[in-house]
Amino acid sequence: MADFIWQKNDAEIDRRIMEFMAGEDVILDRSLFVHDLRASVAHVNGLASIGILKGGEARQLADALDELREAYEAGAFVLDERFEDGHSAIEAWLTEKLGDLGKRVHTGRSRNDQVLVASRLMLRESLHDLQEQCVQTARLCLQRAGESQTVAMPGYTHLQRAVVSSTGMWFAAFAESFIDNAFLARDTARWIDANPLGTAAGFGVNLPLDRALTTAELGFGRMQVNPIYAQNSRGKFEIQTLAAFAQALLDVRRCAWDLSLFTTSEFGFVSLPDRFTTGSSIMPNKRNPDLVELLRGAYPSVEAAMLELQSLLSLPSGYHRDLQNTKPPLLRALKTAKAVMQIFPDVIASLQFREDALRKAIEPAMHATDRAMELAAAGLPFRDAYRMVMQEMPELAKREALDSLEARVSPGACGDLRLDILAKRLEQLAANP
Amino acid sequence: MADFIWQKNDAEIDRRIMEFMAGEDVILDRSLFVHDLRASVAHVNGLASIGILKGGEARQLADALDELREAYEAGAFVLDERFEDGHSAIEAWLTEKLGDLGKRVHTGRSRNDQVLVASRLMLRESLHDLQEQCVQTARLCLQRAGESQTVAMPGYTHLQRAVVSSTGMWFAAFAESFIDNAFLARDTARWIDANPLGTAAGFGVNLPLDRALTTAELGFGRMQVNPIYAQNSRGKFEIQTLAAFAQALLDVRRCAWDLSLFTTSEFGFVSLPDRFTTGSSIMPNKRNPDLVELLRGAYPSVEAAMLELQSLLSLPSGYHRDLQNTKPPLLRALKTAKAVMQIFPDVIASLQFREDALRKAIEPAMHATDRAMELAAAGLPFRDAYRMVMQEMPELAKREALDSLEARVSPGACGDLRLDILAKRLEQLAANP
Amino acid sequence: MADFIWQKNDAEIDRRIMEFMAGEDVILDRSLFVHDLRASVAHVNGLASIGILKGGEARQLADALDELREAYEAGAFVLDERFEDGHSAIEAWLTEKLGDLGKRVHTGRSRNDQVLVASRLMLRESLHDLQEQCVQTARLCLQRAGESQTVAMPGYTHLQRAVVSSTGMWFAAFAESFIDNAFLARDTARWIDANPLGTAAGFGVNLPLDRALTTAELGFGRMQVNPIYAQNSRGKFEIQTLAAFAQALLDVRRCAWDLSLFTTSEFGFVSLPDRFTTGSSIMPNKRNPDLVELLRGAYPSVEAAMLELQSLLSLPSGYHRDLQNTKPPLLRALKTAKAVMQIFPDVIASLQFREDALRKAIEPAMHATDRAMELAAAGLPFRDAYRMVMQEMPELAKREALDSLEARVSPGACGDLRLDILAKRLEQLAANP
Amino acid sequence: MADFIWQKNDAEIDRRIMEFMAGEDVILDRSLFVHDLRASVAHVNGLASIGILKGGEARQLADALDELREAYEAGAFVLDERFEDGHSAIEAWLTEKLGDLGKRVHTGRSRNDQVLVASRLMLRESLHDLQEQCVQTARLCLQRAGESQTVAMPGYTHLQRAVVSSTGMWFAAFAESFIDNAFLARDTARWIDANPLGTAAGFGVNLPLDRALTTAELGFGRMQVNPIYAQNSRGKFEIQTLAAFAQALLDVRRCAWDLSLFTTSEFGFVSLPDRFTTGSSIMPNKRNPDLVELLRGAYPSVEAAMLELQSLLSLPSGYHRDLQNTKPPLLRALKTAKAVMQIFPDVIASLQFREDALRKAIEPAMHATDRAMELAAAGLPFRDAYRMVMQEMPELAKREALDSLEARVSPGACGDLRLDILAKRLEQLAANP
Repeated sequence: MADFIWQKNDAEIDRRIMEFMAGEDVILDRSLFVHDLRASVAHVNGLASIGILKGGEARQLADALDELREAYEAGAFVLDERFEDGHSAIEAWLTEKLGDLGKRVHTGRSRNDQVLVASRLMLRESLHDLQEQCVQTARLCLQRAGESQTVAMPGYTHLQRAVVSSTGMWFAAFAESFIDNAFLARDTARWIDANPLGTAAGFGVNLPLDRALTTAELGFGRMQVNPIYAQNSRGKFEIQTLAAFAQALLDVRRCAWDLSLFTTSEFGFVSLPDRFTTGSSIMPNKRNPDLVELLRGAYPSVEAAMLELQSLLSLPSGYHRDLQNTKPPLLRALKTAKAVMQIFPDVIASLQFREDALRKAIEPAMHATDRAMELAAAGLPFRDAYRMVMQEMPELAKREALDSLEARVSPGACGDLRLDILAKRLEQLAANP
Repeated sequence: MADFIWQKNDAEIDRRIMEFMAGEDVILDRSLFVHDLRASVAHVNGLASIGILKGGEARQLADALDELREAYEAGAFVLDERFEDGHSAIEAWLTEKLGDLGKRVHTGRSRNDQVLVASRLMLRESLHDLQEQCVQTARLCLQRAGESQTVAMPGYTHLQRAVVSSTGMWFAAFAESFIDNAFLARDTARWIDANPLGTAAGFGVNLPLDRALTTAELGFGRMQVNPIYAQNSRGKFEIQTLAAFAQALLDVRRCAWDLSLFTTSEFGFVSLPDRFTTGSSIMPNKRNPDLVELLRGAYPSVEAAMLELQSLLSLPSGYHRDLQNTKPPLLRALKTAKAVMQIFPDVIASLQFREDALRKAIEPAMHATDRAMELAAAGLPFRDAYRMVMQEMPELAKREALDSLEARVSPGACGDLRLDILAKRLEQLAANP
Repeated sequence: MADFIWQKNDAEIDRRIMEFMAGEDVILDRSLFVHDLRASVAHVNGLASIGILKGGEARQLADALDELREAYEAGAFVLDERFEDGHSAIEAWLTEKLGDLGKRVHTGRSRNDQVLVASRLMLRESLHDLQEQCVQTARLCLQRAGESQTVAMPGYTHLQRAVVSSTGMWFAAFAESFIDNAFLARDTARWIDANPLGTAAGFGVNLPLDRALTTAELGFGRMQVNPIYAQNSRGKFEIQTLAAFAQALLDVRRCAWDLSLFTTSEFGFVSLPDRFTTGSSIMPNKRNPDLVELLRGAYPSVEAAMLELQSLLSLPSGYHRDLQNTKPPLLRALKTAKAVMQIFPDVIASLQFREDALRKAIEPAMHATDRAMELAAAGLPFRDAYRMVMQEMPELAKREALDSLEARVSPGACGDLRLDILAKRLEQLAANP
Repeated sequence: MADFIWQKNDAEIDRRIMEFMAGEDVILDRSLFVHDLRASVAHVNGLASIGILKGGEARQLADALDELREAYEAGAFVLDERFEDGHSAIEAWLTEKLGDLGKRVHTGRSRNDQVLVASRLMLRESLHDLQEQCVQTARLCLQRAGESQTVAMPGYTHLQRAVVSSTGMWFAAFAESFIDNAFLARDTARWIDANPLGTAAGFGVNLPLDRALTTAELGFGRMQVNPIYAQNSRGKFEIQTLAAFAQALLDVRRCAWDLSLFTTSEFGFVSLPDRFTTGSSIMPNKRNPDLVELLRGAYPSVEAAMLELQSLLSLPSGYHRDLQNTKPPLLRALKTAKAVMQIFPDVIASLQFREDALRKAIEPAMHATDRAMELAAAGLPFRDAYRMVMQEMPELAKREALDSLEARVSPGACGDLRLDILAKRLEQLAANP
């Protein structure tokens, strides 16, 4: 570990305690490092703008920061336990390259606003990725829905067979949910799109920092004005970002639950490609839908991370070291959630419904609701129709599933999926990213 | 309890089990009842639009529904355990008033989409209220910030005195956070502003329901197209609504923590009106800031409700009776959160900072950062300035808190709170409610 | 609401704030009231023991407290919003009955230790009930396991058919889990079995209270010695109590999930009595396993209550008004959990396996593991056996499910359920309640 | 990654999916590896006992397993991504060393019971460590309590100064809580002390495994009888283990909150050694109690891990791949909790109360309760005493803190801490570990 910048006297350093306090902070900073570097360049330019740095100095610093970014991305520079954290690593690099000039990068800022701005940039990028993945998922679902509007399948409530449904309607359901999820990712990205750089340790500084410049240079939608609020928003914005991911994973879990049932021998509705399954170490006869189960089991990671942040934030205003503990759950949950969102479109694209099995699962009683509705539409009180229709089973047995699908014409239902509306929302989103 | 509408045969009804299954559902429906009635009128008009009801029939039904709403609001009609739930109560009323015509209100809909649409309307209204309360809080904070820009107070990090701050900056911090919370309430209201009415039990119906009409009549921003998704969104939209309330209560908790400390004898920074405090049953000398503590203790209720919903939703697609259990945590948390948001502006308006106590808490060392920054701005590497300044304590002791405030000119800091930017965001919100 | 006992001056009482602060506290105290009364009698006797009350005075007070308990249990005394809380109600009653003597019940105690001791007694009683219900459930499971050792059913991993299992083994699994749950209830009851009465508001009093006497009189296993710890244990002991209930409900959820699948048309393994099911308001053909779904959906209530307490307790030592908010989640969760535990044995007793459906679900491949194990036992490396056995399907098709059950002789498996060990543990528990 | 043992055909292996499915499983298995090896030796001996292996074969296998353990502990064998998981690594090692004989270790067991038994051993060991650390903490607290019974400090309720307390009582509070935590660790270790080895994949095997032998050899208190329950207990036992750690960390959080306040300039009650604090990167005047804040911020990690497990376990009976996701939160939380418990005793031992600051914080009004109690003991109704005493402030000002401490004689209070009872409980625990 590098020398501690605040180490003033002969304080006995207890390594064990230091390690506890450091945690895996510097390793976690790998997820933030390029953002930290980018924000450092903006800060340097801001200092130049108010005359704290001369133009040439700023350029030297910016060049050295770019060089570090390149070295880091190429693997030539490794961020590890040699450094207290990513911020220290940057200062060490600059000082080595530029001597006293390097030290001046820290003028007018604190590690507190450094970590805030780097996290903010990372959160925003993550949400953009989420939006893109939700759009991709929605598009695939829309396509598959369009292709399978006439493939009948049982519709369930309470896991009991209820009425005739279609795989098209099932795919369209996930299309619409991921469209909503994409909009939420966008809205959340906008909500957190505020620049905390220039708020220092929560009270600003006695320099007329050019925060407008850094806000523009980092592409933020607005300045986060108040320094105390900048500190208080740590965790707050992270929770809302996780909430957006959680909504997407909530639907992944729903879908994975469906697939977990649909791939049982008992349902037998869906087959998955081999690469989504594994065998058993003891039972030679098994192929297990492990991928689906792991997708289902991902949601709790994000749920727990949200909870961990919510629970941590029972604090007075301002920075407290407790907040260091926001990093591990945040980064962990984002890693899991991103992996899920990368894989999920493949699942949607690859799953195959077995049409014969679906057909066999359609029973006469599943036409009963349709029949009751016909009677009701003809003027019979629905409750009376409801009671009457159970006498007509032989009649119902003659009905065709396909006829039922076509007759289900309420907007959004099997007979009128209204995929056009969903496609149009995707266009609206693309027009307002 | 009324007769069960689905009771077909001589099934033995075990009252104990029935009570467990009913829970407090009908009582909870009180929060949804007027919304259910409003949606029922829209449904009736939709049925008329497609010819299922004649114009006169629809009018009769709508009139009877309005009458029930008036009776309910006047207390003349009580929704209680006589009914299985609010939906049954409506049908019972209509049947009593209009005979067979009354029964026809249920044509083309299910209790599933009834509860969805009523909940959706209630969630939307709650979010509008939240937005309004956040705006009100933000306005009060802005006003108090404007009035107290020159009142110095210690600024803390790690609960340690750090630099000179101001009560103006403290109020402005909460102004900005509640502006963000207001935007989030608005965005969330828009996100959930989708009409599920007309999706029946999750598969639509074999009637060309006029969903465009009901969407417009209920003022929804869009139709929730897919019936399966309508079911799958139950809980999903509730979680996001709670997330918006939670963000507001997160800041209330922060503020309450500050006030809990500021009202100790040791800090002594803030006095609260008597009506916010209570005495002790055993200690005659005490006045306790109970209100502040209860505001602090409200967040976990919303946090837990979100968790309860998240945990409940580990289910395959479609309706399951488990979902009945989404109601109690949702309604409970909203009730608590609303009460908090109603009271909180009063706290902001009434708390009094004790300027003498604040002044006494300003120590010379709290000017050290300012001094280090001055040296750094003059070209000294910040780390060197940092080390040098600790030698200059006698010098620092001569500094005035007010000078420090004025010199802190980075945008947003004590010397330049930029309340104009915050006020402008409130205007933007008012223009796009 | 009664007069506030601490109301010293002309403090303006804001009703709205008072209502917020009171919450539903007095209503919730109904669950604690008889325990509060019982502890009050013990306190009175303790005061007599150290001469603060004369014997006759103590008797008068104890009689009046008994009278109140009887009136309360008979419904003649109603605990409602007329009182600030249950404690105030007791004092009001005593004062009305006994004048100044009545007021002396509060000597040497605080509402803080009153609520602690009443809660502790209630928690202990709840855990005893839980233990009893777990034992009852385990006994039923054992009985049904014993009766159905030879009823073959598919055994699943990953919800995929794996090997031949038996309904006997399925019932025995829940027998063992509820035996463990019963032990946990007992251990938890012992862990919290400590008397906080006599610790006042967290610092004791300047009276030599006879805490040994009250500890014995209230049947506590030990004295909770330290007054600060008595306060700090509020919530702590509640969490652990909920953890014990949560363990039981975790297994209820598992079982309910099984039944939810087993009652689908696709599995078709289990039929439930009509009283556990309900119909649909729109689909005449349905009978839904609502009870099972509501049992499954109960766990999150307890989980959320635990979380709410955990989150609330981020506080310094001593009493804070936040702790009032521990009551609603605790009492709510216990109510739900108790209802579930009352109903669950009925489910175990009443569910019927359909043996024909189970038999049809046994496939030849489900004998593959047995065969591989035979080869391995004969000396073939298991991995080789594993690869070989998939070639022998026609052979496996000839095997009988019952033979497989009988051959599965590893202790605890179908061929040797070892119900004797489980029965013996129940006896051990009965001997050490 | 090694060859997959279940890889039967030319299934296309998608590396990306494989990596997602593997997660960091093999790395996490490092925490379980020595336990897995130990259980493997027991399994081998069990196979010998029923004649599946010859004595010589068993010895060869056991020796090779011991060798692997030594190599692993010496760092000569590294468990990493070359292996699918720890179980595969063991089999690979044995096969390389012993050829076909090595493969036979897997006879009669499954990775499912392997991971269960290894986890169980690890959980038990963790709980033993926890018990030991709680005892150590309690002893230190007892010692410090004994040394400081006459050091007066303010006692707080609602963070308001209430009555005179002592640092001795404060230390004794944590002594008692950690005694309770130690008992809980012991009870929990006993509760989970059940051997799952020999239950295979959840259905046992067709071999008369000598489970009594493996139970004895691994030192388990009992056999976990039922194979389905063995699977269903995965997560269940982990939650309860975490609950025991959480109780300890709950008290650490309380204590850390106290210290966070006590180390402010405003309270100024406690000084911490330099090694517990750090400086600020921007504020030269600061020493921050970072360690205390990180101890406070540790609880949410355990809370979140419990929640993650609770949420994951919404599943039907038997093994599902979702359960792989129980490992990361469990191991992460245990790591954090263990680190906290290792450091916490040092904090208790090292913190220094500043007696002068404590003394200055004692105010006359803090004697009011004592005085009221005196009047009440003399026969005045407490409520009247309560009202009267506020008139006597000048009188109260003459009281000495020390007199107040000595007069507080209710058992457990400052004047009679009853450390003897606490010490005796520690002895009882030592006698029943």
